[in-house]
Amino acid sequence: MPAPPKFLDYVDANADKFIKRLAEAVAIPSVSGDASYRKHVHEMASYLESQLKTLGAEVRSVPLGKQVLDGQEIDLPPVLLAQLGNDPKKKTILCYGHFDVQPALIGDGWDTEPFKLVIDDKTGRLIGRGSSDDKGPVLGWLNILDAHKDLGLPLPVNLKFCFEGMEESGSEGLDELIHAEVGKGKFFEGVDAVCISDNYWLNTRTPCLTYGLRGISYYKVTISGPARDLHSGVFGRTVHEPMTDLIAIMSKLVTPCGKILVPGVEDLVAPLTSEEKARYDKLDYGIADVEHSAGAQIALSDDKAAVLMGRMRYPSLSLHGIEGAFSAAGAKTVIPAKVSGKFSIRLVPDQTPANVDPLVIAYIQSEFAKLNSKNKLSIENIHGGKPWLADPNHWNYVAAIKATEAVYKQTPDLTREGGSIPVTLTFAESLGVNVLLLPMGRGDDGAHSTNEKLDRSNFIEGTKLLGTYLYEVADIKA
Amino acid sequence: MPAPPKFLDYVDANADKFIKRLAEAVAIPSVSGDASYRKHVHEMASYLESQLKTLGAEVRSVPLGKQVLDGQEIDLPPVLLAQLGNDPKKKTILCYGHFDVQPALIGDGWDTEPFKLVIDDKTGRLIGRGSSDDKGPVLGWLNILDAHKDLGLPLPVNLKFCFEGMEESGSEGLDELIHAEVGKGKFFEGVDAVCISDNYWLNTRTPCLTYGLRGISYYKVTISGPARDLHSGVFGRTVHEPMTDLIAIMSKLVTPCGKILVPGVEDLVAPLTSEEKARYDKLDYGIADVEHSAGAQIALSDDKAAVLMGRMRYPSLSLHGIEGAFSAAGAKTVIPAKVSGKFSIRLVPDQTPANVDPLVIAYIQSEFAKLNSKNKLSIENIHGGKPWLADPNHWNYVAAIKATEAVYKQTPDLTREGGSIPVTLTFAESLGVNVLLLPMGRGDDGAHSTNEKLDRSNFIEGTKLLGTYLYEVADIKA
Ligand SMILES: [Zn+2]
Ligand SMILES: [Zn+2]
Ligand SMILES: [Zn+2]
Ligand SMILES: [Zn+2]
Repeated sequence: MPAPPKFLDYVDANADKFIKRLAEAVAIPSVSGDASYRKHVHEMASYLESQLKTLGAEVRSVPLGKQVLDGQEIDLPPVLLAQLGNDPKKKTILCYGHFDVQPALIGDGWDTEPFKLVIDDKTGRLIGRGSSDDKGPVLGWLNILDAHKDLGLPLPVNLKFCFEGMEESGSEGLDELIHAEVGKGKFFEGVDAVCISDNYWLNTRTPCLTYGLRGISYYKVTISGPARDLHSGVFGRTVHEPMTDLIAIMSKLVTPCGKILVPGVEDLVAPLTSEEKARYDKLDYGIADVEHSAGAQIALSDDKAAVLMGRMRYPSLSLHGIEGAFSAAGAKTVIPAKVSGKFSIRLVPDQTPANVDPLVIAYIQSEFAKLNSKNKLSIENIHGGKPWLADPNHWNYVAAIKATEAVYKQTPDLTREGGSIPVTLTFAESLGVNVLLLPMGRGDDGAHSTNEKLDRSNFIEGTKLLGTYLYEVADIKA
Repeated sequence: MPAPPKFLDYVDANADKFIKRLAEAVAIPSVSGDASYRKHVHEMASYLESQLKTLGAEVRSVPLGKQVLDGQEIDLPPVLLAQLGNDPKKKTILCYGHFDVQPALIGDGWDTEPFKLVIDDKTGRLIGRGSSDDKGPVLGWLNILDAHKDLGLPLPVNLKFCFEGMEESGSEGLDELIHAEVGKGKFFEGVDAVCISDNYWLNTRTPCLTYGLRGISYYKVTISGPARDLHSGVFGRTVHEPMTDLIAIMSKLVTPCGKILVPGVEDLVAPLTSEEKARYDKLDYGIADVEHSAGAQIALSDDKAAVLMGRMRYPSLSLHGIEGAFSAAGAKTVIPAKVSGKFSIRLVPDQTPANVDPLVIAYIQSEFAKLNSKNKLSIENIHGGKPWLADPNHWNYVAAIKATEAVYKQTPDLTREGGSIPVTLTFAESLGVNVLLLPMGRGDDGAHSTNEKLDRSNFIEGTKLLGTYLYEVADIKA
């Protein structure tokens, strides 16, 4: 059952109304990471709650308690749990999105006021903080409700929504809420699949579906020796210097070509199947795209699949920096007393923090022992999260593929992504259902960056895409 | 000719007067590194100028022009060039000192107000910023003039003084002034030897003379790749990461035991003579002192002479830190776009920046080439200075040894130091005379640190030492 033409026509005919609602949402500076903006996150929750109610949803605004931010104890924004329809003959789709945004100031380099949606008719861009991440996609769902209400069309599935206001700040409190709402008689009961629209096409041309995300294990390796920072004139070549030891250890973690040197870590990677390999060869994304995005010709390989698999299906180890060493401009002749190297490994199946951490810790301890240093070593795992991988042959993906083909006349790329969206794994594990990442925006939207935008066509066709997906879900016998 | 007993008695009898003058000097917060304190550096110059004139010296206050500091154009403090006596039958000794100090705020952790000299009768400490570095020693010279004037004693030598107010801030303008005042009819004409009292005993027990200082070459190695910082989720294992390359290079510079790995650099070190080796074996300073001072048992060797030579007569390479990498607390998953490693080599004869820099640059370039990275490398020498070594058998040292034996009843240790005092080399090279470092304070004075102090006994006996040194200089036929 493709989407009814009158739904698609309605979306086209009401584009300006939808854009006006996006402008209202963008105008609320719901920055979750800054205590002084917190009231606007609450304001944004109220705005969405009232919109959802107007469109016929039952909404519960669930308080998450308090947090300490910037030295103040403040209220966490609520999570909105909403639902429409409870027909046991229909499938139930859970849609996740977030209504908080990254910070943005005109002084950061924006060409226009970040919290005023600018409609650039020449380029077709809708420019403003949150336009693409993630207010546009969240409003995409509202547009669908709007259309069905106005047209008197029944929704093809039962819908549940979980919209949070802390995604850009670690989703504080969300996991606990999800776990509390799983089970008989609880909000998430009966969900058949999850759809998250909070990522992007790889490029600006070809829609994609994302079925995997890397996990992460983030480490802090601390070497300490002297009781205080020392002067290199007085102490150079008399004592073991923590920086020398730390740099030696950090140099043993990864090669300049990206191979992880911690024994056993690469061995945990699930073997590549020919079906999966074929996907990378076929992806509409290449070395030129990676290098354009990085701003320099620094790809690790000339082989397209190798570069893409480096991001999507192999683990990576990045050295982020050193805490406690001299990091300012200028020339200070210090021997830092205590230095902490920060690095993280992006994990892929079958790696987990649980099986990788012991390998990393044992290796660093053994490399440190080889140095014969009198300094002290400690290793801390700051945070970790498992990788996530869904079955892209599941009906949830089949429906999304059909919907994409119907709206965009293109078969979407099936991709995995290199970063983490922890809620994806939480839903997959705690609900035990398939999770789909169905992006609305393009790869150049600049989420988290200056001049964030959502193309008007992505907002409008994306609304059609999300709606059509629901019809395709309803159509599949499963 | 030992110092006349009535000079020594006068010093003891007038200790309180001398301490009162030290209190006046400490009360002027002549911090050279902070534009808002600059007026006090000028005030301190005027104070000294008037004291010197009262004590019979001819004084020239030489302006050094302007500098830009903290965004303001301000006057550099003057250098005071003073002299007493012009007897062609007497030797002429040039005494150098500085009247500026390091910053100090009670909030830094001082137990008492830093710019109010506290006389602690229990410990015998004179506590205050500049007490030991370098107002105490500068006033030591004034105490001698005071005594000779009051007693109607002729000075045993002609004295010249060069007191600057920018030592703690790079001695800006001083080298140019010295070069301009060398030559016939110029201020420094006729100087037979130089005495600098601006360092410390190695320990708290045994006076020392210092006849060598290490030089330095400070490097900044920059690796750049991406046009901007990248997200490790998106780019990890797709591009060459500057941090990985930089850490690889920094790991190839020095071993955990302090051996410099840059080929050829250690080969430039002048061979150890048995006469010099005997000095280290004999020094009243050992591994326990080094470790006490570092606050941890982290000495590189169990061999006392090896540890002391590591500081005094061998080069050292210290890794100071990285500019541009993630250096804050917390866990940021950034791939920094451009990172600059900072390290320096402390140089000893026969190393110079001129013969070491090319070795370092060539080595880093060749190590970078081995990485096969597509990132870009640049190497900058931020600053450099040659090592300095004087002949400790020169009459200038012989006189200081005799003076120390007379005042302290101890033979001073002959030491070299690991840091740099650039003016030492400037005097040695531009005047072509022997330079002596004759410390007044002890190793635990805490120059540059909180609760800086000068022991009352070091101030008083130190005044006797400097005076007796002048008599011993006059006594030697040379
Ligand atoms: Zn988002
Ligand atoms: Zn985001
Ligand atoms: Zn000094
Ligand atoms: Zn100093």
